[in-house]
Parts: sequence; structure tokens; C-alpha cells
Amino acid sequence: MNFRIRAAQREDCRDISRMIMLAVFEKMAEQATLSHEDLERDGFCTNPLFECLVAEVPEEDDPKVGYKLVGYALYFYTYSTWKGRCVYVEDLYVMPEFRGKGIGKGLISKVAQVGKERLCARLQLSVLDWNTSSLNFYVAKGAQDLTAAEGWHFLRFDGGALDKLANEAPKD
Amino acid sequence: MNFRIRAAQREDCRDISRMIMLAVFEKMAEQATLSHEDLERDGFCTNPLFECLVAEVPEEDDPKVGYKLVGYALYFYTYSTWKGRCVYVEDLYVMPEFRGKGIGKGLISKVAQVGKERLCARLQLSVLDWNTSSLNFYVAKGAQDLTAAEGWHFLRFDGGALDKLANEAPKD
Repeated sequence: MNFRIRAAQREDCRDISRMIMLAVFEKMAEQATLSHEDLERDGFCTNPLFECLVAEVPEEDDPKVGYKLVGYALYFYTYSTWKGRCVYVEDLYVMPEFRGKGIGKGLISKVAQVGKERLCARLQLSVLDWNTSSLNFYVAKGAQDLTAAEGWHFLRFDGGALDKLANEAPKD
Repeated sequence: MNFRIRAAQREDCRDISRMIMLAVFEKMAEQATLSHEDLERDGFCTNPLFECLVAEVPEEDDPKVGYKLVGYALYFYTYSTWKGRCVYVEDLYVMPEFRGKGIGKGLISKVAQVGKERLCARLQLSVLDWNTSSLNFYVAKGAQDLTAAEGWHFLRFDGGALDKLANEAPKD
């Protein structure tokens, strides 16, 4: 399929926001509280909190042959005290009707390329265990499943638990 | 116990590097390749790749009553497409002879406080499943174990697998 991948621009945030909502499971939709204005503010500023690639295909309905966005990969840089800078892929999404055409593969490979250019020693991401097609895809590409291999568990504080933890901080 | 927690300074990197090596399991020591100069460069620059807190106790052997570092928490900011900015604790370490005195609790609470000040919606971290004392500690403090609850697996590309992935990126 004819597609191309490029760095996201501020003007893409509406489309990215739309796809973020598509990627959210129905019952969890109320948890996704970011707007496209939030993405514009956080990703397209002096010290952006994330970077993003978008995948686009020719817009066949458009006589001027424009492009439309059908996928994105949103990532940021993390730090390992063993290896230094790493890249972490928070979201990788391709609209269902455009899957199986190499677009997801193109997105993750491009993030890997960007990461290597930035001297990242690792590319990391998290996948839900029932999402076997994604899990198998990444493992087939050479990813190690560190939860299966080493037993890493992912923990989160949020809401009241985070407030309580913060309130218990020692005084300076 | 009398201890205090403060933001790490460039001059602390030798001590932090020493503790990073203490935290490494013997058989994996060759994998920890960062030097204290790397930490100085990456953490104490215009756009640092991480932030760090250190815990110190009075140096009893020192007649001038200085302090010595006995623990650290190294963290950075990540991004959720649902919630925006989050804080991720990469390492939290207290030297064995200083455990059980509230220092680890002080460090994680202080990171939570810093995260709240920076408007982070979540504090996240990863723990090995055999490290039951840490796992139980965080869960008792209100953390959700998302690997146990939702089935999140943590994946990594590095070395040759990362090179190969990057080399397969579509041409611009």
C-alpha cells in the first residue's frame, strides 16, 4: 500500500486526538481526558513532553489528492541507569481498515531509527497480554518480553493514592 | 533515624554511580556501563534526561559532622495520551544497612510530591516479581499492580534487534 510516515506537526493534533479516542476501549473512554489542545501544548513547545510520527495515505475521495492520517506512534525518551538514554513507545495505532499493510511495522521501525539517531540503547513499550497479535508481532521482530522472561511488574499510583503519598513526603 | 532528602547535585554523581553498582546483581554487573561522568552530562545540563533525589545521614565518623549519601531515587517524566504528564521512578535504592528506617518511604513520597507540583497525574515504576518486599511495600501504599490486574507486559528491543528494526525503516 502507498503510505508515508512523517513527523507530526501541530496541525495534526486534532487527527491524533481522534485516533487516541479510537484506540480507547469503549468502557474506558471516560478515562481519556486529553484534548487536542493539550497535545498541541505538550508536544509542540520548547521542551516537548513527547514526539510523534504519523502515517498517512492518499485521500482517494479528494480530487486534489491530499493525504489523510491513518496511524500514529507517540514516544518519548527515558533513562536507564545502566544504559543511558532509551526511547519508549507509549502508543502505536493504525486504524483497523488500514492494518496488515505494513504501516504499523513502518511506524515502529521509524521510531527505532529516530532512537538510534539519538543514541538510544533501547526501544521499549508495553503490551496487554490478551493483545496476542501485537505481542507476537513485536516478539517476532526481536523484542524481549521482560515480564515473561524476568518477571517485571508495572505499578501505578494515581488519584487519592498519589495524593496521599505526596502528602507524606518529609518536610525539607 | 535522622536523615534528609534533597535534590541531587552534580557533585553527587560519583556517589550515585557507586550506589547504582551496589544495586546491580553480581552476574549482571557487566551490563551496567554508565559512568558518573555520563550521569553528570545527562542529568545536569540544560535539558536533563532525568532528575534525582538523594538521601543522606550524618557521617558519624567525621568530627565535622558531614553527611553521607545512603540512597537515591532517579526519575523522569513520561506522557500518557489519556492523562498527560506522568512521573516514572527508574531506580529507588537504599543501602542495605540503612533499610527499615523510612528512607525508601521518604524518597518515594518526595518524588510523588515533586510529581504533583509538576501536575503529573500518575507516578509509575516497575518491580521484579521476586522482590516481594518492594512489591508489597508499594501495594500497601496504594499502588496498583497493572501487570497483575490488567496483564501489561513490558517489551524491549536492544542490541542487534534494535539495529535491525531501525534499518528496516521506510525511506523518507
